[in-house]
Amino acid sequence: MPGSPFAPAEFAELPPVEGVRLAACEAGIRYEGRKDLMLAIFAAETVVGGVFTRSRTASAPVEWCREHLAQGRARALVVNSGNANAFTGMKGMNAVRATAKAAAAAAGCDAKEVFLASTGVIGEALEPVKFTGKLDELAQTVSEIAWVDAARAIMTTDTYPKLVTRKVQIDGQDITVNGIAKGSGMIAPDMATMLAFIFTDAPLTPGVAQALCEAGVADTFNAITVDGDTSTSDTVLLFATGAASARGVSEISDTSDARGAILGQAVEQVMRDLAHQVVRDGEGLSKFVAITVEGAENEKAARQIGFSIANSPLVKTAFAGEDPNWGRIVMAVGKAGEKADRDKLAIWFGDIRVAYRGEVDPDYVEDRASAYMKGAEIDVRVDVGVGDASSTVWTCDMTSEYISINADYRS
Amino acid sequence: MPGSPFAPAEFAELPPVEGVRLAACEAGIRYEGRKDLMLAIFAAETVVGGVFTRSRTASAPVEWCREHLAQGRARALVVNSGNANAFTGMKGMNAVRATAKAAAAAAGCDAKEVFLASTGVIGEALEPVKFTGKLDELAQTVSEIAWVDAARAIMTTDTYPKLVTRKVQIDGQDITVNGIAKGSGMIAPDMATMLAFIFTDAPLTPGVAQALCEAGVADTFNAITVDGDTSTSDTVLLFATGAASARGVSEISDTSDARGAILGQAVEQVMRDLAHQVVRDGEGLSKFVAITVEGAENEKAARQIGFSIANSPLVKTAFAGEDPNWGRIVMAVGKAGEKADRDKLAIWFGDIRVAYRGEVDPDYVEDRASAYMKGAEIDVRVDVGVGDASSTVWTCDMTSEYISINADYRS
Repeated sequence: MPGSPFAPAEFAELPPVEGVRLAACEAGIRYEGRKDLMLAIFAAETVVGGVFTRSRTASAPVEWCREHLAQGRARALVVNSGNANAFTGMKGMNAVRATAKAAAAAAGCDAKEVFLASTGVIGEALEPVKFTGKLDELAQTVSEIAWVDAARAIMTTDTYPKLVTRKVQIDGQDITVNGIAKGSGMIAPDMATMLAFIFTDAPLTPGVAQALCEAGVADTFNAITVDGDTSTSDTVLLFATGAASARGVSEISDTSDARGAILGQAVEQVMRDLAHQVVRDGEGLSKFVAITVEGAENEKAARQIGFSIANSPLVKTAFAGEDPNWGRIVMAVGKAGEKADRDKLAIWFGDIRVAYRGEVDPDYVEDRASAYMKGAEIDVRVDVGVGDASSTVWTCDMTSEYISINADYRS
Repeated sequence: MPGSPFAPAEFAELPPVEGVRLAACEAGIRYEGRKDLMLAIFAAETVVGGVFTRSRTASAPVEWCREHLAQGRARALVVNSGNANAFTGMKGMNAVRATAKAAAAAAGCDAKEVFLASTGVIGEALEPVKFTGKLDELAQTVSEIAWVDAARAIMTTDTYPKLVTRKVQIDGQDITVNGIAKGSGMIAPDMATMLAFIFTDAPLTPGVAQALCEAGVADTFNAITVDGDTSTSDTVLLFATGAASARGVSEISDTSDARGAILGQAVEQVMRDLAHQVVRDGEGLSKFVAITVEGAENEKAARQIGFSIANSPLVKTAFAGEDPNWGRIVMAVGKAGEKADRDKLAIWFGDIRVAYRGEVDPDYVEDRASAYMKGAEIDVRVDVGVGDASSTVWTCDMTSEYISINADYRS
């Protein structure tokens, strides 16, 4: 499979996050000759927040994480690629329990402090015996600088590993926020998944970790779409080790704490960067597209209209064809089911206003718009003319390559 | 553009519907060398019912029809292809008024008894002066047997005209129901539209015509999807001339009248046949797919889950790849947002049960399912295990050809 045109040329190792150690290895779950299993071990005081797929057919690992998130404590994270352990009935939950037990033994913690995610083929039993033996080995080799390895081990059809870091100052101390993610369309082998793991050394209560995770996701991971499809396994977890408290940073125990806002901003930046990286690795894509809807009745309506545009096959194929086809944008606004004033509608491609007050802009010159559409990054702005709310979503185009990847995989 | 593999080899003329006369001509609106304008003239007592796009950016002709539907009377129908007269501001409504006026003069009726539909490129002003002169000529040449001509004149990217007829007996008399339609994906030139017109000689009150139209659409035109996109111009109109009353058929004035049920069944059959023809002409399609969802909480939920499956790019590309990829069906059930019991879920491709009780069927043999997927018509059945309601939707696969048609049209 050809790589994304947006793939970075190289991947710098991330700085350590005090209290987080990681390792990855080849467990041979499905892929040959690459790492497919990662273990992270966390300091004793680590808290966790999480957000999961809204799918009604969620996978066994998602069920496990949801159940144990309530206690808010985490000591280990195990992620495998190659098998999603989804739609595997009772066997699926048994595999999860066996994995958590083995990881707990390796990390020296309780099974319910182990968080899990699996991504890859669905409907095939995951045989944990294949890799539970590897967990001890991984626990021996964990280090503070195995981020690239970890990011690679969780890839499925991703064409590059996704990782990012930010630093902020809290109580005069450097606080690190690292993130790794995988995604690339909800696909292959049979279906992929969006997974993201955020790590920080800030001292948080479980409630603040959960609040920052939920707030961060809203305008980042929840504002992207490759093909509108939703995995059974989508998982975002935020781990906060609290290691910075040894350097005099006191615990952030309230979301109204200004330090929480500073950290929250860094968490959101990390999540947004990862979310964009996921879109930029969308299957077969040639363009990265930002769609901003303004003048909507409320933010939810703006988001809904944005996704209606971003998920429309006709809009996505027009981007692939470098066609400034604003008629399809009008169509997608209309079908979103949210309030829009047809006769006040305005549309911009970049700075070029193509439609204004419900008609083609009198000054519109198609050649200019066509030239703009040849770029690799496209900004679309739509004013729907009924209110003040706005929202931005990010997506990619839909090319013949997307069809090839998804139609020809098993044939 | 290659034709659909489902295109009929030939098109028989439909029988007359007493009280309906039609003609079509070349008005040169956009296409060269083909008819692009049709006029139907109706007997004096003709009533009309209609259903329109739910788009919030509906076209001027749709607004006109909605406004005049309340009176329930129709004497003429004008349809042009090549220009949708959508997103054309005040000019759009002026074009509609000019067309209605010209048609009224030609047909000898009031402008508000003229119904209109336009399909084709959007955002370009429709110059009615181009074809209002043709309406007189058309009014001179209308005949009872110009159905194929009319069906051809309303085509945009359709690769074949769509028409069908049914006969039923009411009060011992033959009643005819004819229908013509166009569609083929919500596309090209810039965006197409689903238009369908049903004609019968049964004597109905306007209220019954409206009720039959709404009831007929529910499980036919509202149960199909090519790409999930919705036009600004979708229009279904049912015209009932009442001409059969001269043969002793008394007026059907109440929906509880058993004769209304008989006629309603014929109307629904005509609509279902046309709806299937629209899907079978979906852009670039290679397969016609029926998706039945059973065991749902209620019919609306079953429909919603069916559309979630039918509109999923991953499911549609799997069909194109002849891949019995039931994992993607599970994903689409999960993302529909309706109640489903993962651990009771069952999936069939044709008669082959691939998943049962939330796991792959123990007797599943992929070779059998793969062989089944090679057929041109695919039946998918899903039991979501929470109730007794069911619903069927129809769709087609998504091929590279779909991308080519929609991405490469203007580039």
